[in-house]
Amino acid sequence: MSTHQTRYWQDIEPGESFDTDHITISRRDILEFAADFDPQPYHLDNEAAEESIFGGLCASGWHVTALMMRLLTDTFVSRHIDLLGSSGVSQLRWSKPVYAEDALCARITVTDKPAATTDPRFGYIECEVNVTNQHGKRVIDLSTSLLIGRGEGAANG
Amino acid sequence: MSTHQTRYWQDIEPGESFDTDHITISRRDILEFAADFDPQPYHLDNEAAEESIFGGLCASGWHVTALMMRLLTDTFVSRHIDLLGSSGVSQLRWSKPVYAEDALCARITVTDKPAATTDPRFGYIECEVNVTNQHGKRVIDLSTSLLIGRGEGAANG
Repeated sequence: MSTHQTRYWQDIEPGESFDTDHITISRRDILEFAADFDPQPYHLDNEAAEESIFGGLCASGWHVTALMMRLLTDTFVSRHIDLLGSSGVSQLRWSKPVYAEDALCARITVTDKPAATTDPRFGYIECEVNVTNQHGKRVIDLSTSLLIGRGEGAANG
Repeated sequence: MSTHQTRYWQDIEPGESFDTDHITISRRDILEFAADFDPQPYHLDNEAAEESIFGGLCASGWHVTALMMRLLTDTFVSRHIDLLGSSGVSQLRWSKPVYAEDALCARITVTDKPAATTDPRFGYIECEVNVTNQHGKRVIDLSTSLLIGRGEGAANG
């Protein structure tokens, strides 16, 4: 009953960019993720963090990439883009620490679109993703190759 | 009162490698992480996942990198290595999906050690990290640059 139109690989062109919503990270979020996945003093303890090179309690870098994925997923879903996965990332850079109450947003820019593969189910797009905080400072940048579905038009793709 | 000796940047040499323990990922782990960070059908729903290119419910790729970080953190802590952070990753590749009840372990190999920086607090080591499942198949591979503390020997480093 949906009236939306799904956008497939063949509908996306280099130069397009998408801005995500914002997401705010809490101190509790930082502590919970760190306890599960990255239990280091500068992600768990205020005092140790203040003495570290980060100058204060900050999120695991892998927490920030996970939040970026949440922002991207919501954006792809809201734009009805058929994201099938990714084979990897080239050049992920953590430029600045992310602290409690930082509000993050991402921009994804399509930088290249390789020729159609022989697999009719999907095609690749090359993208650059930049995540910025509420001060407009970049916190992570990465380049990635995404698999986008080719839908029912695949046979003609 | 500890009798251990912390290993600093100056004590680590290219060619060294460290094997981590194993960690098993449950279906519940996969669903919880996906709900928080990567809510896509192939990470949340058995039926949708079976119809996807992954062939079954699988973990978010960012969940796998987070688990890798947990394995590495535990290993660095247990070996008393003063890990201060990382500036980034080059060439992260998700080679195979990770399914519920997969048991993962990682090997980290020091591939290079650039000259000491002017900052006496730390030095860099270049590393390759490979994560394998219980069948000995690689699930992720990446290269990263880690900041390792130089401790009290820093002034002479």
